[in-house]
Amino acid sequence: MGEGFKAITSGTVTSPRGFLAGAVDANIKTPDKLDLALLCSEKPCVAAGVFTANVIKSAPVILSKRHLKDGKAQAVIVNSGCANACTGDSGMADAIEMAQLAAGKLGLSIKDVLIASTGVIGVSLPMEKIRAGVRRIMPVRDGGHELARAIMTTDTLSKEIAITVESKAGRFTIGGVAKGAGMIHPNMATLLAFLTTDAAVEAQFLQSALQKAVADSFNMVTIDGDTSPSDTVVILANGSAGVANINRSNGQLFQKGLDEVCLHLAKLIAKDGEGATKSIEVTVEGASSQAQARLAARTVVGSSLFKAAMYGNDPNWGRIVAALGRSGARVNEKKLEVYLNGVCVMKHGAPIHFDEIKMRQSLACREIMVRLCLNLGPGRAVSWGCDLSQEYVTINSAYTS
Amino acid sequence: MGEGFKAITSGTVTSPRGFLAGAVDANIKTPDKLDLALLCSEKPCVAAGVFTANVIKSAPVILSKRHLKDGKAQAVIVNSGCANACTGDSGMADAIEMAQLAAGKLGLSIKDVLIASTGVIGVSLPMEKIRAGVRRIMPVRDGGHELARAIMTTDTLSKEIAITVESKAGRFTIGGVAKGAGMIHPNMATLLAFLTTDAAVEAQFLQSALQKAVADSFNMVTIDGDTSPSDTVVILANGSAGVANINRSNGQLFQKGLDEVCLHLAKLIAKDGEGATKSIEVTVEGASSQAQARLAARTVVGSSLFKAAMYGNDPNWGRIVAALGRSGARVNEKKLEVYLNGVCVMKHGAPIHFDEIKMRQSLACREIMVRLCLNLGPGRAVSWGCDLSQEYVTINSAYTS
Repeated sequence: MGEGFKAITSGTVTSPRGFLAGAVDANIKTPDKLDLALLCSEKPCVAAGVFTANVIKSAPVILSKRHLKDGKAQAVIVNSGCANACTGDSGMADAIEMAQLAAGKLGLSIKDVLIASTGVIGVSLPMEKIRAGVRRIMPVRDGGHELARAIMTTDTLSKEIAITVESKAGRFTIGGVAKGAGMIHPNMATLLAFLTTDAAVEAQFLQSALQKAVADSFNMVTIDGDTSPSDTVVILANGSAGVANINRSNGQLFQKGLDEVCLHLAKLIAKDGEGATKSIEVTVEGASSQAQARLAARTVVGSSLFKAAMYGNDPNWGRIVAALGRSGARVNEKKLEVYLNGVCVMKHGAPIHFDEIKMRQSLACREIMVRLCLNLGPGRAVSWGCDLSQEYVTINSAYTS
Repeated sequence: MGEGFKAITSGTVTSPRGFLAGAVDANIKTPDKLDLALLCSEKPCVAAGVFTANVIKSAPVILSKRHLKDGKAQAVIVNSGCANACTGDSGMADAIEMAQLAAGKLGLSIKDVLIASTGVIGVSLPMEKIRAGVRRIMPVRDGGHELARAIMTTDTLSKEIAITVESKAGRFTIGGVAKGAGMIHPNMATLLAFLTTDAAVEAQFLQSALQKAVADSFNMVTIDGDTSPSDTVVILANGSAGVANINRSNGQLFQKGLDEVCLHLAKLIAKDGEGATKSIEVTVEGASSQAQARLAARTVVGSSLFKAAMYGNDPNWGRIVAALGRSGARVNEKKLEVYLNGVCVMKHGAPIHFDEIKMRQSLACREIMVRLCLNLGPGRAVSWGCDLSQEYVTINSAYTS
């Protein structure tokens, strides 16, 4: 049998062998909603993480980074409804206690527990509810789906995937869940994503593989240009599949599989942006470098004016070019080609006539594709986002209340 | 009599002596709307300009920069409804013809005519309408008000001011008009502003005075984070007031007056942001440097999430701190103080309890004041913006149609 991937039906973060999860309704902010969850492995794991680039970091982010220093972890405790960010010294004490509660329940050292919180900033965790909630959580084999629902805030659907990887050395699985919706912007474009694998992976390679996968997936999604202080992506590898240890020399297939999982979750986040009615994919080709291509793609997909035009099926491509022009990427207008849903609308710096009625019909779909050919070099990147609707404003003008 | 300023009732860009303006409805995009205007001086002027930082520049911007190289100009021709940007070589030919039409009408050299266009990108100017329109324009002494209306696109009110400056050397006047509303972001935060003065000003000083005035006014306004390829601020100084030539050594009062005029117009632009129901002023104090303070202030006032919260009278100050944290400015959470409409909501990195009902009432006003004390150094800056309403999306999802 050859090497390759296969998606697992209803796959989730507990699809890899030896992982358990559970969630409860702890009534942290909203009644009758799962909001506190625990993910754990039966065996100690090699672990890696990527965290927010915001200089204001939540207490859970600071603590998880500290616990990940040894490249090992065995569990993650996570809540929605309160971000435990900008909460001062008492917020850090709360984060430590929350990790300690999970460690005590599972019989682990606190250093092997990672922690994440998402929700309102500047509000302290209701620790009585957290204590009572942790006592009630029962991690089970198929608990990934509950965990995926427990981390949702303004998300409208849970974001889960698992794939089976067939390698020469044997079969292993990679699973993941994520949440998105708001405060989503490059430099860790998702609030939270938890990834698991039953492959055995060498620690340093796991960290570099995760960084590489995140750079072209979560970091290329923008919903609203706001980077959260809570952004966290972690991966746990417990080796339960019994395949040979994966490292830099033999890790190509693992990297591809991890890329696949991150890309799938990132696209789900873009599709489910707050108030979104459609997703937008922007491909930049021919930039001077990959870094320039990323900069250009992320700027265009984040333009409020372009996003609003796409909501209205308005082929106002000038807004694409205006955003490209302010991105900081090198652009030569005379060499520029712009394609909207496959139709060339600008070439060599001049407009190309198109059938506006047909274009409007084409834009009235769920997925908008923009392609920008800069014709300057080999740099290529793809970014994902969504349109801007009145609903985004409605959601965000009444979020804490 | 002492030195000082006085606002002129119904003051406008033709309030300074020796300036004329006129506008017509040329039917460029919308019938029955003034959309083509001419501003001119009876005498040759010293002139200065500041233009868009977008690498995609409209043909009028490229041409005006070229005509300004000698530091002289005598007229400005401007249209709304079409930006003449991304229009290739024929767009440049159209811009040159438009300047030539104005020059011919006024008996000037084309090099003394500046040109500006605002409106849809990627559409060519309807030159037949421009030719017919220029023929019909009659510049008059009180024509500034018509010009102010002719440059409006989605603006809901015209933006005009003039002040009289009393100096030891005599009295002179500075006037200005601007348009704003959309595609407004730092690095030339207004689409168009035209300033005039009847003072005699030395060319190099005029350019540096304009740059300084723009840095703390137009460049500190953001509506939607999108920088237009058409942004233009120009000033014409014709010396008709008969006061002594103003230069670096005696220009302090002129600078103050120019700052005042630019600040007034910039605040009007913030108040009249597309769909805005209220204006927002963000003051950053105690930053490491002025550049850091500007960066922080502009990032916070541009956060979509914070803007949406202000629309909903929602005291979700965590969004202010999250935006500050991603701004790139140095921030020490433990030293940070945050004030919302005068009430301290965060100090030393921890939340401060406030009366939420009273705060919501306070936010239900036309002007929101945010003050961020970083307590790191002497840097101070103020930025202006507006809230984000459903109406912004409505306007921008159907702009070209």
